[in-house]
Amino acid sequence: MKLHCGIGPNSYRVRIFMAEKGIDLPLVEVDLMKGEHKSREFLKLNSLGQIPVLELDDGAVITESIAICRYLEELHPEPALFGRTALERARVEMWNRRAEIELFGTVGNVALHSDPMFAERLTQFPAFAETQRELAPQKWRWLDRELADGRPFLAGDFFSVADITAGVVAWLGDFFGMNVPGDTRHVAAWLQRVRSRPSWSA
Amino acid sequence: MKLHCGIGPNSYRVRIFMAEKGIDLPLVEVDLMKGEHKSREFLKLNSLGQIPVLELDDGAVITESIAICRYLEELHPEPALFGRTALERARVEMWNRRAEIELFGTVGNVALHSDPMFAERLTQFPAFAETQRELAPQKWRWLDRELADGRPFLAGDFFSVADITAGVVAWLGDFFGMNVPGDTRHVAAWLQRVRSRPSWSA
Repeated sequence: MKLHCGIGPNSYRVRIFMAEKGIDLPLVEVDLMKGEHKSREFLKLNSLGQIPVLELDDGAVITESIAICRYLEELHPEPALFGRTALERARVEMWNRRAEIELFGTVGNVALHSDPMFAERLTQFPAFAETQRELAPQKWRWLDRELADGRPFLAGDFFSVADITAGVVAWLGDFFGMNVPGDTRHVAAWLQRVRSRPSWSA
Repeated sequence: MKLHCGIGPNSYRVRIFMAEKGIDLPLVEVDLMKGEHKSREFLKLNSLGQIPVLELDDGAVITESIAICRYLEELHPEPALFGRTALERARVEMWNRRAEIELFGTVGNVALHSDPMFAERLTQFPAFAETQRELAPQKWRWLDRELADGRPFLAGDFFSVADITAGVVAWLGDFFGMNVPGDTRHVAAWLQRVRSRPSWSA
């Protein structure tokens, strides 16, 4: 089994996930800058030309970061990062999706519609990027209100893949000049908690 | 336990899921046209003001359609709609996400950026909607190439939540004048298979 990955938030999410579980897999570096993800060979692995991709020993392929993480969770259940009970698992799914849709979606739209790196991938609308850039602090403030109940992590009192997703969005936002606003103290405390984990250097 | 739901693709996804499993839950109709999802009372259930929402007997709340479906799958495992083995579950997650990101994302952007219904929700960019409208047939053609291996359903030889998501996107596309293009015969056969299920009238 090996993981095809490279730069970017999605490969980073999977690497953090693996580090949390102590999973050591052969990594195949895909150089996005050289366009290796659009090579004929890579497109056979993933017709969407995206990383990360998990390639199993029998040639089966799993794409999409969270699908890869779920598969790794089944092979290495401890520590559980998708929850331990039905309700925990539902809350992790809920919060991972909220982190993806509300936070990642907003910050990602800014990157997709303003960074020259994505100019070939889609028709960019810089004005749309600007509305999303203005929206990003509001999304963090929404999360701040949600965390005001004092729980340490997004889905409750345990660290989960939802924290990985949201933490990586903060990292991505920093990269694109969209820092978490300074008035979100619950988010700041949560982010400190997440970023101080050894897995963050994965 | 009760489900707060109403019109729209996400409530429909959950209703189809429930119908496939024969789950009968009290439904609380949330009238989006009357803005009931933005009422103070509803925002206490879901601060994002979105449906569907599953409210448990102890007051716990699960939002996000797929989180609700996963919870229902745990309570009612049969028939399995998220896969039976680790690899099946990974493939369902992968294909549900591909259906959401590639298909739902594209068709959804057209709706969000062109329909007056969403004018209050975000700054609309009709030109962006147009690029997404042109992209939609390409996404269905991509899916057609993926289904050319002859498998009956998105994640393999079994019906899953990924088929519900993609099928509901086709339904949404019809509503917004973006029919599945006529040259996608594998998609057409799959869609026929999916739409003929009794659950589709849920």
